[in-house]
Amino acid sequence: MRSTVTFYLCYLLCLALGLACVVCVCVWNSRWRGGFAWDGSSLQFNWHPVLMVTGLLVLYGYGAVVYRVPLTWGQNKLPWKLLHAALMLGSLIMSILGLCAVFDVHNANNTPNLYSLHSWIGITAIILFALQWGVGFAGFLLPCSPVLLRKLLKPVHVWLGGSILLLTTAACISGINEKLFFVLRGNVTYSSIPAEGVLGNSLGALVIAFGLVVLKILSNIQWQRPDSRPGDIAYTVGV
Amino acid sequence: MRSTVTFYLCYLLCLALGLACVVCVCVWNSRWRGGFAWDGSSLQFNWHPVLMVTGLLVLYGYGAVVYRVPLTWGQNKLPWKLLHAALMLGSLIMSILGLCAVFDVHNANNTPNLYSLHSWIGITAIILFALQWGVGFAGFLLPCSPVLLRKLLKPVHVWLGGSILLLTTAACISGINEKLFFVLRGNVTYSSIPAEGVLGNSLGALVIAFGLVVLKILSNIQWQRPDSRPGDIAYTVGV
Repeated sequence: MRSTVTFYLCYLLCLALGLACVVCVCVWNSRWRGGFAWDGSSLQFNWHPVLMVTGLLVLYGYGAVVYRVPLTWGQNKLPWKLLHAALMLGSLIMSILGLCAVFDVHNANNTPNLYSLHSWIGITAIILFALQWGVGFAGFLLPCSPVLLRKLLKPVHVWLGGSILLLTTAACISGINEKLFFVLRGNVTYSSIPAEGVLGNSLGALVIAFGLVVLKILSNIQWQRPDSRPGDIAYTVGV
Repeated sequence: MRSTVTFYLCYLLCLALGLACVVCVCVWNSRWRGGFAWDGSSLQFNWHPVLMVTGLLVLYGYGAVVYRVPLTWGQNKLPWKLLHAALMLGSLIMSILGLCAVFDVHNANNTPNLYSLHSWIGITAIILFALQWGVGFAGFLLPCSPVLLRKLLKPVHVWLGGSILLLTTAACISGINEKLFFVLRGNVTYSSIPAEGVLGNSLGALVIAFGLVVLKILSNIQWQRPDSRPGDIAYTVGV
């Protein structure tokens, strides 16, 4: 009972931090970076942080913790599997759109793609995520997938899920840091800690806090769906 | 038995990745960034990435997994506690020296301190680490500390330890990314992917891989020291 109350407090914190990340990245790019367009200009670039933070980070995190909600435990697992897969598909589509936004802007301005550490980590996260979604769909949703395969896949799926979140967090932080150094120069420098710098740094702090809360929820064994806990007698039933 | 073999493979990978991070950051700063000094110049700055990667990341990671080595399980826990505390103290001292290196350079060049997202995350990691070390020393090493306090402290200590590692990883990645944008401009730009860019990006990839392996080792319940596993009958003995 005490564990359930703590879970819901943690879950509320997760939802609130995710929402705060989305609000913060939208306010930053609409109010301080001039808003949005899809024309190869810097206004198209603004979709990149918004789609990555909203899709690859927040929607992914929300999708990752679906099975942890105790309210869903007494019910058939299939609808929750479909919700998990749908949230993750939404996250993947937003991430790919976020990639298109930045590639378009780079190509329109003859800027090379995928040279920075930020981009290497970000593209690795998205490639692994696409593989994870495809293998997860085939392994856990197709009825023909054998139980033994599901049992073998599951720990890899869980571990890779957490690892992708760590990659995403590192990509978001390096991207926000890089963007603030790029745009805060000239009259108003980043080092003078202007309002936009504080907003961007606060977004980074929220991203880290969200990542930590999601990883905390995922790593607590007591919060795992009972038929998914290692050692549980029904371990193979719900995979 | 199979779990022990897998642990040692993972542990060897952890040691090798940590060593590769240290070699990579030393080669980068000695060969490509001109070497080291302590005179307020950019050569003093070069100590910053070396001390942070070696101390705050690698030595910290090595110290974090000490209790997971099965060879130590049959033995008295105290010497391993002392080794854990000593490695962490070494890591903390190197981190503080790494901070001094960059503050000195900033102050000598009238550059403000602690304005970037990288610096906010890095300083948060070090403050939390110092608190963690102090509370850990008082709670787990002082003989007068009551068993109940140790039992309450332990899950917080373990969770905060993993969280500090995530903060450190994000700080390292944003710092390496930022440094490469700063220094690779003019004739040889970062976007032309010069050898130094590949080296820096590879260092970032190694940092991520090291962080993931350490977190994997820490999160596997089967690899926890038996008297530390939740639910173990001797849970309170070894805290």
